[in-house]
Amino acid sequence: MGRPSRVGRPRKDTDRASAREVLLTAAHELMSERDSIDVPLIDIAQRAQLNVALVTYYFGGKDALLLELALRHQARFGVELERLLDRPDTAEAKLAIHIRAMVRAYRRVPFLQRLNHKILRDSTEEAARALAKALVEPLRSFYVRLVDQGVAEGVFRRVDPMHLYLTTLGACDMLFSARTTLRFGFGVDQIDDDLAEAYAKHLQTTLRAGLLALPE
Amino acid sequence: MGRPSRVGRPRKDTDRASAREVLLTAAHELMSERDSIDVPLIDIAQRAQLNVALVTYYFGGKDALLLELALRHQARFGVELERLLDRPDTAEAKLAIHIRAMVRAYRRVPFLQRLNHKILRDSTEEAARALAKALVEPLRSFYVRLVDQGVAEGVFRRVDPMHLYLTTLGACDMLFSARTTLRFGFGVDQIDDDLAEAYAKHLQTTLRAGLLALPE
Repeated sequence: MGRPSRVGRPRKDTDRASAREVLLTAAHELMSERDSIDVPLIDIAQRAQLNVALVTYYFGGKDALLLELALRHQARFGVELERLLDRPDTAEAKLAIHIRAMVRAYRRVPFLQRLNHKILRDSTEEAARALAKALVEPLRSFYVRLVDQGVAEGVFRRVDPMHLYLTTLGACDMLFSARTTLRFGFGVDQIDDDLAEAYAKHLQTTLRAGLLALPE
Repeated sequence: MGRPSRVGRPRKDTDRASAREVLLTAAHELMSERDSIDVPLIDIAQRAQLNVALVTYYFGGKDALLLELALRHQARFGVELERLLDRPDTAEAKLAIHIRAMVRAYRRVPFLQRLNHKILRDSTEEAARALAKALVEPLRSFYVRLVDQGVAEGVFRRVDPMHLYLTTLGACDMLFSARTTLRFGFGVDQIDDDLAEAYAKHLQTTLRAGLLALPE
């Protein structure tokens, strides 16, 4: 019976947390379904069955909601990258594991790459610099250390980590950002497990062979 | 002195053609500068120093203007692809030439990939099918024939042409669609000739090695 003035709080906090989750999930679903990151706020609120004013109340606006979505996914991915680097595997094996993880991550969050670009583009210079630390740095650092390891093992040629970053992320993302191209250009209506796995395998084989040091 | 009723026509046609060009150029410039395909119609008109109503008059609307821009660039690229296929080169050489041409094309039109996706996504099913013939089919067909030739020459492994299409285009596009990522994540402020050429070379080497048939 102590702290009577705070009796209502826990419930309120739960509601708040739950409303935030519902809004984040609604934004995620709509961007995935529509294959576009330009989803109106009103549609997000409608899908969440919440008043549109609550987005401002809980997040401060749509941009902040999208930022939280991107940071969450990127944080999760950053943890995976750290774990992967710490494994006792060869650089070749790590590259293969990483490629499959990327394809799977983009399958869960097909708009992630586009969302990250948009966030950095629409931010002020100062904010973009801070955000890049969360959105880009974990991956940049991963590629630098992966190439160093592969070269030290005598297996990879000395490739520019930024080039490898662009090639791998661009190739992974393309399967998911070109959905209508696949549909109308190649007759592929759905990116199912089989296609995602086959494409991951193609990238693993191609990039592995593409990075091997040429024999003396 | 014949056909007096048409005296004013040639001048009007020239004006019309020239206003269309000015609007297309304005849209192109703004999308390149802002690193975004979401450029308001009013800004396009302002850059072109023309009344915004003229966009509707000349094109029927902004979507039609963007479509014409995409079709033009794609048509030019389609002609290049046909010429390349008809050359007496090996598949390996054609792949290298194609990669450099793609990087150069995206450097001229950094938003081309995103614009094509948007056009297909925002079209009706029927329109998207027709547009895919112009926007995707020349490239799809190029990759099918390139892989066939490389396999016939005993040099390439039997890779899925769609996979190769996604890998090559995704990797080429990433250099130009991730400008803010490069800037704030890698400290690269400008995509100059040196970077574009170095990246094209990286892709040529990586994909060539990645496609080679494994020795028996």
